[in-house]
Amino acid sequence: MKKKNKKVNAAILVIGNEILSGRTQDKNTVFISNWLNEKCGISVKEARVVPDEEKVIIKAIRELSKKFNYIFTTGGIGPTHDDITASSVSKAFNVKYEFHKEAYKILENYYGKKKFNDGRKKMAKMPKGSKLVYNPSSAAPGFIIKNVICLPGVPSILNSMIDNSKKYLLKGLKTYSKTLNLYTVESNIAKNLSALQKKYKKFVDIGSYPFFRMGKIGVSIVSRSTSLTKLNKVQSDLIKLAELKNIKILKI
Amino acid sequence: MKKKNKKVNAAILVIGNEILSGRTQDKNTVFISNWLNEKCGISVKEARVVPDEEKVIIKAIRELSKKFNYIFTTGGIGPTHDDITASSVSKAFNVKYEFHKEAYKILENYYGKKKFNDGRKKMAKMPKGSKLVYNPSSAAPGFIIKNVICLPGVPSILNSMIDNSKKYLLKGLKTYSKTLNLYTVESNIAKNLSALQKKYKKFVDIGSYPFFRMGKIGVSIVSRSTSLTKLNKVQSDLIKLAELKNIKILKI
Repeated sequence: MKKKNKKVNAAILVIGNEILSGRTQDKNTVFISNWLNEKCGISVKEARVVPDEEKVIIKAIRELSKKFNYIFTTGGIGPTHDDITASSVSKAFNVKYEFHKEAYKILENYYGKKKFNDGRKKMAKMPKGSKLVYNPSSAAPGFIIKNVICLPGVPSILNSMIDNSKKYLLKGLKTYSKTLNLYTVESNIAKNLSALQKKYKKFVDIGSYPFFRMGKIGVSIVSRSTSLTKLNKVQSDLIKLAELKNIKILKI
Repeated sequence: MKKKNKKVNAAILVIGNEILSGRTQDKNTVFISNWLNEKCGISVKEARVVPDEEKVIIKAIRELSKKFNYIFTTGGIGPTHDDITASSVSKAFNVKYEFHKEAYKILENYYGKKKFNDGRKKMAKMPKGSKLVYNPSSAAPGFIIKNVICLPGVPSILNSMIDNSKKYLLKGLKTYSKTLNLYTVESNIAKNLSALQKKYKKFVDIGSYPFFRMGKIGVSIVSRSTSLTKLNKVQSDLIKLAELKNIKILKI
């Protein structure tokens, strides 16, 4: 982990027909976003879901890897015909798709020589020059090549191994967030929020999200910033606003 | 609804910092995908999540609207400063961002003249030439301009109004799917699945997804096609394969 210095960003590329068809609810985006921010100070700036189609994956990898500091891919690194992430990433970067010696050993050791069939061997094939992201729960490793980190799609396995990618990442500034829940409607405070956002411009992002709780309508004001000082200022401005407008604050 | 003739596709563009930050789990992608396939025969080919940033939204709208038959956007059409979907779509298509007369009337009528403040009025501003997608649950309408359909981000509201966008859409061929759950591991059938996928090439998409149920490991084989006949053939080939390999089928 390199020294903490600046804003570092990432994109998430979810690969899999099962997400686009609506069969499976993606849970990896939320998990990776939170992990990146909490553990590495990295902000996710785009998430994209694409089908298991080589051309589409190659295009997305090339585009996103130029635009962001890192791409995290999920899915498509298993043993079957629809697992084409590793071969597609190889093509995207014009490097060989070949057996990774250490990955091969890990998998051969895990399954035993007799049961180490072609499908399982496929999981040791990666873009030439990849470094491994070890997998403590089911052996088959993920990998990093250039600024692309490839992880599996099964959430429990992904969650168990993501910490092993940390050593390859630059550490950035963590984004803090504060939420104030107000018993009011958005349109009642829209003008004030707009003025507040203008006041803190690029330092704080202020978002407004309606909620419905126990039959009452409210608005969650979520402020996000890499500066805790600025965040506290916004928060106290918001509390003043609520008092001024006689809006009840929901304490949780 | 036009006549059923061919493959029609769509992209989903989720607009909102709260999804990228990991604060909120996106639920709209799964809902819209299933609705589009079931009700309209439209397949979702890409989903993208972008922040509340004008430049990024404009770029995504331009790119996706050229690439796919439709884009469904979610989020960013409320009354506050961070709701910039309608103005960004206007800029993407170089059309005026102005009050939509009917939307203005609907909202004025819903809130009453006295309570129809600036924030609420903002929800009647749209790209010039938009047609409305009526909202039965909270009045503020969505809209369609060219091939872009803009819906709100709150799932309960989106769900209540999506049927009202149907009349604007071409009807395509529905994609059917069949699932076979096998008590085996992926690598045991990887070769056979690969051969099966080759046999049915572009007519059927065969996906393989590991599952863990009641302490047992299995694989869900999901086949998807616009042809029910081809789908049934794949299914019977899969059942033969299971018998041949002595693999137990999980009946649900």
